[in-house]
Amino acid sequence: MTGHPLPHHDGSPLYVSTQTPQLGERVSLRLRVPAGYPALREVIIRSNPDHEPHWNTARRLGRTAGWDWWQAEITVANPGHGYRWMLIHDDAPGPGSAPTIEWVNQAGTHRGEVLDSYDFRLLSHPAPPQWLTDSVMYQIFPDRFARSAEAASRSLPEWAQPASWADPVDPVMPARVCQFYGGDLDGITDRLDHLDWLGVQILYLTPFFPGASNHRYDASSFTAVDPLLGGEEALIRLVEAAHARGMKVIGDLTTNHSGDRHEWFQRALADPDSPERSYYYFDAQGSYESWLGTATLPKFNWASQELREAFIEGPDSVVAHWLKPPFNLDGWRIDVANMTGRLGEVDLNAEVRQILRRTMEQVKPDSILLAESTNDATSDLTGDAWHGAMTYPSFTRPLWSWLSAPEGAPYLNAQGNQETVPWFFGQPAGGIPQGSARDFAAAVDRFNAPIPWRIRLGNMLPLDTHDTARFAHNAGAGTVPIAVGLQMTLPGLPTLFAGDEFGLTGADGEISRTPIPWDSREEPVTVQRLGLYQELIALRRQHAVLRTGGMRWLYVDEQAVVFLRESTQETLLVLAAAPAADQQWRAELPSALLSGGAQDARPLFGNAELGLGADVLTLGSQGPGFAVWRLPGVVVP
Amino acid sequence: MTGHPLPHHDGSPLYVSTQTPQLGERVSLRLRVPAGYPALREVIIRSNPDHEPHWNTARRLGRTAGWDWWQAEITVANPGHGYRWMLIHDDAPGPGSAPTIEWVNQAGTHRGEVLDSYDFRLLSHPAPPQWLTDSVMYQIFPDRFARSAEAASRSLPEWAQPASWADPVDPVMPARVCQFYGGDLDGITDRLDHLDWLGVQILYLTPFFPGASNHRYDASSFTAVDPLLGGEEALIRLVEAAHARGMKVIGDLTTNHSGDRHEWFQRALADPDSPERSYYYFDAQGSYESWLGTATLPKFNWASQELREAFIEGPDSVVAHWLKPPFNLDGWRIDVANMTGRLGEVDLNAEVRQILRRTMEQVKPDSILLAESTNDATSDLTGDAWHGAMTYPSFTRPLWSWLSAPEGAPYLNAQGNQETVPWFFGQPAGGIPQGSARDFAAAVDRFNAPIPWRIRLGNMLPLDTHDTARFAHNAGAGTVPIAVGLQMTLPGLPTLFAGDEFGLTGADGEISRTPIPWDSREEPVTVQRLGLYQELIALRRQHAVLRTGGMRWLYVDEQAVVFLRESTQETLLVLAAAPAADQQWRAELPSALLSGGAQDARPLFGNAELGLGADVLTLGSQGPGFAVWRLPGVVVP
Repeated sequence: MTGHPLPHHDGSPLYVSTQTPQLGERVSLRLRVPAGYPALREVIIRSNPDHEPHWNTARRLGRTAGWDWWQAEITVANPGHGYRWMLIHDDAPGPGSAPTIEWVNQAGTHRGEVLDSYDFRLLSHPAPPQWLTDSVMYQIFPDRFARSAEAASRSLPEWAQPASWADPVDPVMPARVCQFYGGDLDGITDRLDHLDWLGVQILYLTPFFPGASNHRYDASSFTAVDPLLGGEEALIRLVEAAHARGMKVIGDLTTNHSGDRHEWFQRALADPDSPERSYYYFDAQGSYESWLGTATLPKFNWASQELREAFIEGPDSVVAHWLKPPFNLDGWRIDVANMTGRLGEVDLNAEVRQILRRTMEQVKPDSILLAESTNDATSDLTGDAWHGAMTYPSFTRPLWSWLSAPEGAPYLNAQGNQETVPWFFGQPAGGIPQGSARDFAAAVDRFNAPIPWRIRLGNMLPLDTHDTARFAHNAGAGTVPIAVGLQMTLPGLPTLFAGDEFGLTGADGEISRTPIPWDSREEPVTVQRLGLYQELIALRRQHAVLRTGGMRWLYVDEQAVVFLRESTQETLLVLAAAPAADQQWRAELPSALLSGGAQDARPLFGNAELGLGADVLTLGSQGPGFAVWRLPGVVVP
Repeated sequence: MTGHPLPHHDGSPLYVSTQTPQLGERVSLRLRVPAGYPALREVIIRSNPDHEPHWNTARRLGRTAGWDWWQAEITVANPGHGYRWMLIHDDAPGPGSAPTIEWVNQAGTHRGEVLDSYDFRLLSHPAPPQWLTDSVMYQIFPDRFARSAEAASRSLPEWAQPASWADPVDPVMPARVCQFYGGDLDGITDRLDHLDWLGVQILYLTPFFPGASNHRYDASSFTAVDPLLGGEEALIRLVEAAHARGMKVIGDLTTNHSGDRHEWFQRALADPDSPERSYYYFDAQGSYESWLGTATLPKFNWASQELREAFIEGPDSVVAHWLKPPFNLDGWRIDVANMTGRLGEVDLNAEVRQILRRTMEQVKPDSILLAESTNDATSDLTGDAWHGAMTYPSFTRPLWSWLSAPEGAPYLNAQGNQETVPWFFGQPAGGIPQGSARDFAAAVDRFNAPIPWRIRLGNMLPLDTHDTARFAHNAGAGTVPIAVGLQMTLPGLPTLFAGDEFGLTGADGEISRTPIPWDSREEPVTVQRLGLYQELIALRRQHAVLRTGGMRWLYVDEQAVVFLRESTQETLLVLAAAPAADQQWRAELPSALLSGGAQDARPLFGNAELGLGADVLTLGSQGPGFAVWRLPGVVVP
């Protein structure tokens, strides 16, 4: 990462002959080695069928544009077939004495034996639809997005504290969850022009089920749409209108628990002999398990076959119901997926997620399944069910650590007290831990190394969500374009929380649920922010390489990261630099790093400096900067 | 690792209040932080019940001998409850701005968020018996250990090629597997004096079942002892005699496959309607799956309930049979455990190992279960069944890489051809990859960081086994004492392949199965080697801290590792240095590293240099050296 290119392989089409390998299929794998690298005597793939090493020797295909290419074939033996590269140097001092060995895996290049957990991995599990990785996702919290004409005429339930659209969000309990703005599904349908203009292609709706809170994660039923949102008909209208524009719509289900007002729980409470009793963990005294001890959120017991059939298994389950006509949802985001099926001695998580996905494959294979797993999700991201996760350590948190201002501003917390420590994902870290660009790159590597490439492409890249402060709230001066730029250019699923494009801020996960300020669209600062999003989303849409191309760090230091997205069609060079506002950042690299056509670099975005001399490649940025250049594609022998 | 002490915690009693936590139990955890460390504002344990972060604040207990001690309590929620330490520095520049955060996990001390896979882990699964970690294990390959008086009178089957005890091992097929020396179980019983003298406490016998090879991994039955070994009565005699001396005896079972002469497979072949047919993977054409395509080793199909009942499940199973009277075996080593239950789409490995261990808990809880998993075993070492593994990357291979001579000598391979490349665990590495002491320490850390401390203590520490070349065969000049020394002083189960103590060599895993040269006992070179083993095993037996104490690297460089084993009773300082034979190795460290009593260091083994000045601690070795000193125990507030 400091100017010397290294051997490289990743899961992208440049290096792997298929993205949808089948069991028994022979797959070609390629490794590239820089021409100036120490001579290699042999290159071998070490794979691990049935958990036992197997060795396939690669052949050298030839040299193009300063890289040697090696290729080997392996036969896919297991649904997650791990492999890594063994590079045998040509430096053995004599017969019987050992050459240098290097290993290349998802964590990089190493001497000394490596753990299997960082192997590259071929997945023969059913693949997600292509549109998952081809899209930018837009997250909508329905109460705060937009009101339809009908919204005003609805009578409100007792719990709801009506608010005007322009009212500030009240951060203090109980208003925090009862303040009701009255956004509804037809309100979303009415605003599809905005989403079309913005360029997003997947709408992810937080729950649309009836509840007793503005967030509706306390659903009283999974078989109805909240009448306050317009009911089932409004959902059908929204999905149809979205589909007509080529957009997809996914919903949000909580498989860890229900609300205590849920019809299932009410029946379970009322009648110990009801089938629903088995859905929860009741003990002999009638006590039950709940989410982190919150009695209003009783935890599901996935040992219950009745629960499985009602909720996730087969074409009559809740999961299937909304994917089928007339609703035609395109997938699910699963709330608290990380805790689902886990309690004490029991861990049914893998079983539950696999059943859930199998049902989706039955009724609508062209659908996606994403897990909420806000911390280290890697152990669950094996490719057996989740297509990706809403997870924060692999992108969001290290991005905040790099780009947030060191000091935050006080705000009111849920108890109405002044909070002086900026919110940081519920971690008692005393603020937002500060990190460098190098720390950011290392964290991206660390949390992506244990997961298959295909899952990495499905992992969300959010700057923030409905559960977090807004990135912009704590952003260092001039860093928003860097953050949005990285979100749109790194491998993964860019996920935009509605309102980010309007420049909304918010100090914590509930304060940030601000109603969309539609009337601010013409204000210069909003015009600029909207334009930033629109332009960067368009960039991603126009360049397939940003969606599915390979990814290589070219250079990393304390203030900047430079990386490439690569395919045979094109190469995009991405620079993100965050010196202080009045400082210049500059790096001089060997020109050979961009062998093969750097002289044709064409700026696509930003105004940072790229200078290519005979020997020296100069990169520079005056203050924080984000820039993208287009270069010729990679030539493979 | 370079002279600056770091905060430390591991799973040993110094830091964890119980080695056998139960679900729901409150466990006290302690962290030590060197007095000179940057000031900490707060220390917090981040644990992960049901896969969701939970935070427990630690309190500072006080300072002793240059260390601050912090303590927190957590309640065990899951059978493998992960946790790590969060250190909040007292360096926030102002209110609302973030202090430095550090994490301490099994992989060390880190800034930036870390993966859950390196968490410390409390195991509530049934614990192994204390004697597992209190023992040194001795591996016996029965055909090559010793003949009883009866051995000569047995008539041999057709496959056996009789050899005299002094004959050289014939490395060429088919003699490689048919050469028959006629060692038997009573031969072992006759030699228990030697084992007693040596000080080993667990005898691990490779298979004693009837087979058609000298290794007997191709058993024709799991319910008989090979008559060539003396039959069941000889086994009973051996176990009784061993028990009388306080020794344990474990057997060797292959759960991945049987031999094709096995009675089960013969019945399965003969009768497609037999229950045994379901034990294997037969297809409609009568073809079957086998180990790596070797037709003589048909693979077990663990989906078969009949197989489970016959082999591993319940008191009538094979697994139980030998643990019960009159045989009274003390446990099992499971051959090819890594592949067991794994084929294509199916992975029943966890299920099989858990059933197997459950059966052992039923019929003999005071027994041990070890898995052969010769590569990265970490994914299977969760603590749910295996007490430890015969695995090579966490000790054996990095040790070879550090201490082997760079060049090997040619030898005859199985095909009778001259092999010029030294054997290295079947890896096509072109020899024994060379590594430094630093590489050794890094590999020990890398492969131990993902497994619970308790499992680390059960993992074998072999220099070699019946499946490998002998370490001594390729050892650099003067390095054997270092290797044996590390084997006896690092956390884990020292495992000695019979004959190592006689100085045997052997170029590969079959050539190394040399008959024990009992007559060489009085030869000076053998006397010396026997003495080395006897003395170092005695050291381990005399110092409980070597068996269960904490472990901290004190200093590591290219040529040497220095570490501490620590308890409240005593501290052992271990030095292993491998400069060239005529070179001096020397290191000067801050005396503060050995705060709390280094002036009382008492040499226990070896003759390396330890000098303690007011400021400087000097360590030195003339040529390769291994030494151990005893220091006072750790004082905890």
